[in-house]
Amino acid sequence: MADAAFIDALIAAAGADAVQVGDAVPLHHRTDWSGVTSVQPVALVRPRSTDAVAAVLRVCSEFRVPVVPQGGLTGMAGGAVPVAGAIALSLGRMNAVESLDTAASTITVQAGATLQAVQEAAAAQGLQVGVDLGARGSCQIGGNLATNAGGNGVLQFGMMREQALGLEVVLADGTVLPMLRPMIKNNTGYDLKHFFIGAEGTLGVITRAVLRLHPAPRAKATVLVALGSFEQSLALLGRLQARFPGAVAAFELMWRDFVAASLHWQSLREPFDAPHPFAALVDVTGSDEDELRAAIEELLGESMEAGEALDAVIAQSQAQARTLWKIREATAELPAHMHPPINFDVSLPMAEIGRFADTCRSALDARWPGNIAVFFGHVGDSNLHISVDAGTVGGDEHGVEKLVYDQVATFGGSVSAEHGIGTHKKPYLGASRTPAELAAMRAIKQALDPMGLMNPGKLFD
Amino acid sequence: MADAAFIDALIAAAGADAVQVGDAVPLHHRTDWSGVTSVQPVALVRPRSTDAVAAVLRVCSEFRVPVVPQGGLTGMAGGAVPVAGAIALSLGRMNAVESLDTAASTITVQAGATLQAVQEAAAAQGLQVGVDLGARGSCQIGGNLATNAGGNGVLQFGMMREQALGLEVVLADGTVLPMLRPMIKNNTGYDLKHFFIGAEGTLGVITRAVLRLHPAPRAKATVLVALGSFEQSLALLGRLQARFPGAVAAFELMWRDFVAASLHWQSLREPFDAPHPFAALVDVTGSDEDELRAAIEELLGESMEAGEALDAVIAQSQAQARTLWKIREATAELPAHMHPPINFDVSLPMAEIGRFADTCRSALDARWPGNIAVFFGHVGDSNLHISVDAGTVGGDEHGVEKLVYDQVATFGGSVSAEHGIGTHKKPYLGASRTPAELAAMRAIKQALDPMGLMNPGKLFD
Repeated sequence: MADAAFIDALIAAAGADAVQVGDAVPLHHRTDWSGVTSVQPVALVRPRSTDAVAAVLRVCSEFRVPVVPQGGLTGMAGGAVPVAGAIALSLGRMNAVESLDTAASTITVQAGATLQAVQEAAAAQGLQVGVDLGARGSCQIGGNLATNAGGNGVLQFGMMREQALGLEVVLADGTVLPMLRPMIKNNTGYDLKHFFIGAEGTLGVITRAVLRLHPAPRAKATVLVALGSFEQSLALLGRLQARFPGAVAAFELMWRDFVAASLHWQSLREPFDAPHPFAALVDVTGSDEDELRAAIEELLGESMEAGEALDAVIAQSQAQARTLWKIREATAELPAHMHPPINFDVSLPMAEIGRFADTCRSALDARWPGNIAVFFGHVGDSNLHISVDAGTVGGDEHGVEKLVYDQVATFGGSVSAEHGIGTHKKPYLGASRTPAELAAMRAIKQALDPMGLMNPGKLFD
Repeated sequence: MADAAFIDALIAAAGADAVQVGDAVPLHHRTDWSGVTSVQPVALVRPRSTDAVAAVLRVCSEFRVPVVPQGGLTGMAGGAVPVAGAIALSLGRMNAVESLDTAASTITVQAGATLQAVQEAAAAQGLQVGVDLGARGSCQIGGNLATNAGGNGVLQFGMMREQALGLEVVLADGTVLPMLRPMIKNNTGYDLKHFFIGAEGTLGVITRAVLRLHPAPRAKATVLVALGSFEQSLALLGRLQARFPGAVAAFELMWRDFVAASLHWQSLREPFDAPHPFAALVDVTGSDEDELRAAIEELLGESMEAGEALDAVIAQSQAQARTLWKIREATAELPAHMHPPINFDVSLPMAEIGRFADTCRSALDARWPGNIAVFFGHVGDSNLHISVDAGTVGGDEHGVEKLVYDQVATFGGSVSAEHGIGTHKKPYLGASRTPAELAAMRAIKQALDPMGLMNPGKLFD
């Protein structure tokens, strides 16, 4: 039950129109895209300024009420789902794009700005944000930073962490850390901003950020390449990166099962004369489309002579590029065609991804003959996705998870490449982190949030 | 005085030949390149393995003896200079390049490997390390990471932090954190490695690292461009980055005073028909030298038409490129020609660098008429260097430092772009960090090194 004095103090801190209590909290703010069960928070607070966030956190400290920060609520791990007895603190009203510095290629934004709003502000100046993801219209920069979002641009520009030059963060006790200096080089003690990126709101609330921007490419070429093995795929990737350093924008590898399912679900035509074990969808950026296509054609010729590429389709137009990308974008169809999908977002040492996939497949087939599972991923950045149809494994989600995460541990991989831990992967964190690392994380948590009020129960208990 | 039981325990931990005591400690290990006064440590310990490092740290914890980690001792801020009563812990014997993964473009090395050794191992596979600096033959990877080294490649590949995929670190109590997973994507809780990068050995000892490598460029073009103003320089940089995204490897801006001093000291010829207020030395990488030079020539034509570039020299050979670079490399001559130089390594919001330099120059001239000062820097990554001849300011080093760092604070810059804080810049850390940030750093220090044994007195007291 909400203590009246506490609610009054919240209202004094953030304004009456910024506080909704109990049953008045909209359903939207009670869960996220992870499918974790809804929880009604004590109150939803939507402050309009950093000062108000700080004031709210001071009130919560005083009353010992936990705080669950919320961005666009598009997370896949349950990190922003409320906790009973906590307030939900939405950054959604702090959504200004404050300034864009074309000389330095930087942009200063409030945490609640959507990724798409920031992308559009950059594009208006011929620049781009290094990170892009499907949820761009809903997800917020603060959430992107708190979860260290990945997505489509990682191969070229890195994760969200690499885009952040500076952050403003409010600690649990209301202290504001104004770490907004926009310099690329700044060696003045511990680089505190990295403590908060990827911490999923467990150490503080991100309120503003300075992000670096990149020149928007003048030209882009898209090619779909047929390959016979994972090793040949890696060889092609190496060849591409050596020929187009820093310009390979995507290298999405799809196992045959994924391609077959995608073509079937979307009624698309087979892109090659025959099915092949792998297909790689590649984007390369450059300054001239014709030159770029000619250079790629030459490279593909070399690759075929070397026995890597088996066949290839080079998109001759943006429309054709979109058609090729449709094959990869079948992920949006997973919920409609699996019953339901059991999704994995793992990463592995790159050379091991092929063997890891084979091992998982064999183990799945041995235990659940006839199961349906598709393998696909960014691969160029070490990230593999797997979706298993729960209906074909007797609904044994935990059994499948244990099987896959055990292999992740054996191969020295990560149970979460880009989605984070939240509550969803908490039981498996130990597969990717040693007890010594977990103890160090707890020591940091204790140091910055001694009362344990920031997003409790997320990441670890 | 060294306690005999303590020395015996060190010998038991690391081996008799790994421990030198008191007067036997070589002079080399008593200071670094910063010019800070030598200090004799209780002992110098040079372990051969991570286990031995852990055993030595357990002994030091037990006896409450502080530890000063040492790499190649090329630091400019005094971070690795021993502290009275402490041991010096040299990583120099842990210098193996353990493995190189060409599929993933990663290299696993021990902390004591020199940067040059790692560069050579990468080059043998057609790859390169993202960081390069003058001290490459002496500096060690562990020190590069502990100080988050910058140098020549930052514009293209970022600082040392951006090269690190994984670290192995030993905490003060001997706990080993084996954070060596080599994946680009790994969102499993706090990314602890970032806590130790740039921490200058105050939180733990880096013992091994996995670094990402980049394809070595097939072609490189070097051009020296004459410019009339700082704003024109930034416009040229923007134009270069839009035309050659990710391929501008250097953009070194030199104010006229620096160019004039460099030409004079090295008896070089004026590169242009007339002196100009600024000269920018630019390296661009690509896949074909002729194509690259043609593209740059075209861009320079546009830049001149737009009123940015005033004149330009495109190197037609590697030899000519080296001649152009000699102008920038006059920094090696500073100690011979200044009495002595008072050196600054600051960074600023990029658009402000020109105004900052003008302001510093005016303030220096007003207070010390006839002073000699040169301004130069990487600029493309926000980094400005200044060297002032102490002989022309009445030897008032502290007066000059206060003047410059006050301006850094006013302009919202950093007192240390790439050299770190060590002991040398400790008095000025407050110009770049707020009390709240310093308090957060102290809380982290307390959490990971509660007895305060790791490199005490560095960064902060």
